[in-house]
Amino acid sequence: MRAEIIAVGSEMLTPFRQDTNSLYLTEQLNTLGVVVRFKTVVGDRRPDLIGAIVTALSRVDVVILMGGLGPTEDDLTREAVGDALGIALHRDATQVAALHARAASWRIPMPQNNLKQADLLEGAVLLQNPMGSAPGQWLDTVYNTYRKVVVLVPGPPHECKPLFDAEVMPRLREVAPPRAIATRTLKAAMIPESQADKILAPIYSTYTDVETTILAHAGDLQLTLQCTKPTLAAAEERVDELAGRMEEALEEWLYSSDGDTLEQIVLYYLGLRQATLAVAESCTGGLISERITGVPGSSRSFLGGAVVYSDALKMAFAGVPADLIAQHGAVSEEVARALANGIRLRTGATIGLAVTGIAGPSGGTEEKPVGLVCFAVSDAQKTDSMHRTFRGDRKRIREWASQQALDLVRRRLM
Amino acid sequence: MRAEIIAVGSEMLTPFRQDTNSLYLTEQLNTLGVVVRFKTVVGDRRPDLIGAIVTALSRVDVVILMGGLGPTEDDLTREAVGDALGIALHRDATQVAALHARAASWRIPMPQNNLKQADLLEGAVLLQNPMGSAPGQWLDTVYNTYRKVVVLVPGPPHECKPLFDAEVMPRLREVAPPRAIATRTLKAAMIPESQADKILAPIYSTYTDVETTILAHAGDLQLTLQCTKPTLAAAEERVDELAGRMEEALEEWLYSSDGDTLEQIVLYYLGLRQATLAVAESCTGGLISERITGVPGSSRSFLGGAVVYSDALKMAFAGVPADLIAQHGAVSEEVARALANGIRLRTGATIGLAVTGIAGPSGGTEEKPVGLVCFAVSDAQKTDSMHRTFRGDRKRIREWASQQALDLVRRRLM
Repeated sequence: MRAEIIAVGSEMLTPFRQDTNSLYLTEQLNTLGVVVRFKTVVGDRRPDLIGAIVTALSRVDVVILMGGLGPTEDDLTREAVGDALGIALHRDATQVAALHARAASWRIPMPQNNLKQADLLEGAVLLQNPMGSAPGQWLDTVYNTYRKVVVLVPGPPHECKPLFDAEVMPRLREVAPPRAIATRTLKAAMIPESQADKILAPIYSTYTDVETTILAHAGDLQLTLQCTKPTLAAAEERVDELAGRMEEALEEWLYSSDGDTLEQIVLYYLGLRQATLAVAESCTGGLISERITGVPGSSRSFLGGAVVYSDALKMAFAGVPADLIAQHGAVSEEVARALANGIRLRTGATIGLAVTGIAGPSGGTEEKPVGLVCFAVSDAQKTDSMHRTFRGDRKRIREWASQQALDLVRRRLM
Repeated sequence: MRAEIIAVGSEMLTPFRQDTNSLYLTEQLNTLGVVVRFKTVVGDRRPDLIGAIVTALSRVDVVILMGGLGPTEDDLTREAVGDALGIALHRDATQVAALHARAASWRIPMPQNNLKQADLLEGAVLLQNPMGSAPGQWLDTVYNTYRKVVVLVPGPPHECKPLFDAEVMPRLREVAPPRAIATRTLKAAMIPESQADKILAPIYSTYTDVETTILAHAGDLQLTLQCTKPTLAAAEERVDELAGRMEEALEEWLYSSDGDTLEQIVLYYLGLRQATLAVAESCTGGLISERITGVPGSSRSFLGGAVVYSDALKMAFAGVPADLIAQHGAVSEEVARALANGIRLRTGATIGLAVTGIAGPSGGTEEKPVGLVCFAVSDAQKTDSMHRTFRGDRKRIREWASQQALDLVRRRLM
């Protein structure tokens, strides 16, 4: 089955905002064997929107419209779908009541134009949206004698994704012809890209029935393998075989065969070893802590740490001696080691991690250029340190540094 | 003039990759008064591509195709444009020579299929691509009696952008009717969306000649005003007038009339007051520090802080008394106040900021639900605290909390 995703909203035709929901929706659709053949972004102009819907109806089986379901005059998706298909809208009494109840529970008056959100296309099924006031719609209809599925989902990601999972996917599963698709995601950290190419290309290029997608970003390599066969067992066999050969080739660079993030893996190993982690961050400025604490349940193994941006805080929170900083400079392996050791002792964590570097754009010297970052990992037995020089802007240097730091902890725990 | 940007490439219809060039191209086009009305992503299938081009020709004046210009069998943009317009391709002798010279300079044999890249649409101008082997093309033509400009540019961002700037923009400037465009971006923090609608809609809706784009995300409201007039003075006058009225209506919610981020503004005020900031973060887990230190030069006013994820670290790094936590719980305004005051005293900062809350998905209770976050700001004079309950998932609650926290500092400094 072929699908088109239409993102509706003039803001996505500005330089400031971009549709991102469609990546998630594509991933979900692919699991059902539904292939996205087109993506379109269209603004809040009714004729443009109608035209885009008619075009989509003429070239795919499933049309998914995201956005334009709110209460304002600019929210025209319902009306435009009605126009494109020649279908009327009617105001759904149950939904009107729900909107009133929602307003009452928030103790706010209900604006009259809110009621637009209760307008349902004739023949459509209303899709509940627990995260917002605009419900989705599912319409299984006929256009020019062809069966077409038209789906309306809200635009905000935190409304779109749960609604798509809970309400759209089960319905699509009934409509899509059964397919057997096996997928695996391997992830590796800090492997040089040229190295990855050299060892992986000769392997995956011989598996022409498995689609391998490679994505590299700031020290994180993601390999997604996908295979479609008449039976799931046949598809899984091919994916498993290729995955096995790649895992072997990636050696210790591989950190997950399951799609987990590096921070999830670090927390997994910490839990396994009943160990705890504390972090002293200078140039990453909280990014490592933020990545770790983004994982639910991280508090079991992550104690916290210090953002030791100033030299004074390096002394106050991690006990780095002032003369060590004076002698080697704040960006040095010596100071990184003192930070890692100090944060571990101050917090009572099993492992201390420290990062200090020059994220730029200024602050670099001949000897210590922008992008130089020093790392250290400390436990009761030993303290290891290293340094690397990353290229790119401030954001990219910080991303690389956080990835390298987490990978050092992973390797220590392995 | 109306434009459509078509990104060509099957990889952009996977869950893993997304067109990003179009944001840059849109920004450039807008400076000429060329408005992007549609964006389309289409894969490397010839009929799909021809269909997308025909659709675009029927609805806009300028069609920009990105990608599909390389030497492989999947690179079909040239052929598809020819099919859509009924125009033949011819092999350009100069370009053939250039491809041979390029291969020779790299000392690599020249594969036969590379010559595809010398195929030029009849009537098109070749656009030099110093960053790669595939040149662009500019075609000023007629379709169904209407003048249409069709532009082919390479897909890789480091080839696309310089070629667009150097070769496409000057030609578009000659074609586009002269326009004068004024733009302003206002930003406000933590204003309830319904409130923003209520006070702003009556204002901007009367300025029908100024296009107002409103973006709201996790407590951050961005208003972009754009006006096109025969002269720049006339456009600026209208934008300034509307901006002035909106600024007045937004009162203290407004934090920037220049497009700055909230963290930039906080750092700006800190610099102005010669004040320093330190942060104790629990549920935000480093996000506030990460946002602040993402700004170059933040080290002048930001000392750092502590990620006090465990109760023990709340005591160790911010001196929160154990019995205060026992009495009120770690998520309480009392503990937030002790954290803010403690981190300020420990670090010697002028201002201490603290956040403690329940980011979920678990850990909530009847009395203290997921999403409850307590905040405190402390300086030598006083310590203020507040709490809020945010909805959404862990990521969203943390984003809202970081925004609220930064806004409290801004208001204290104002």
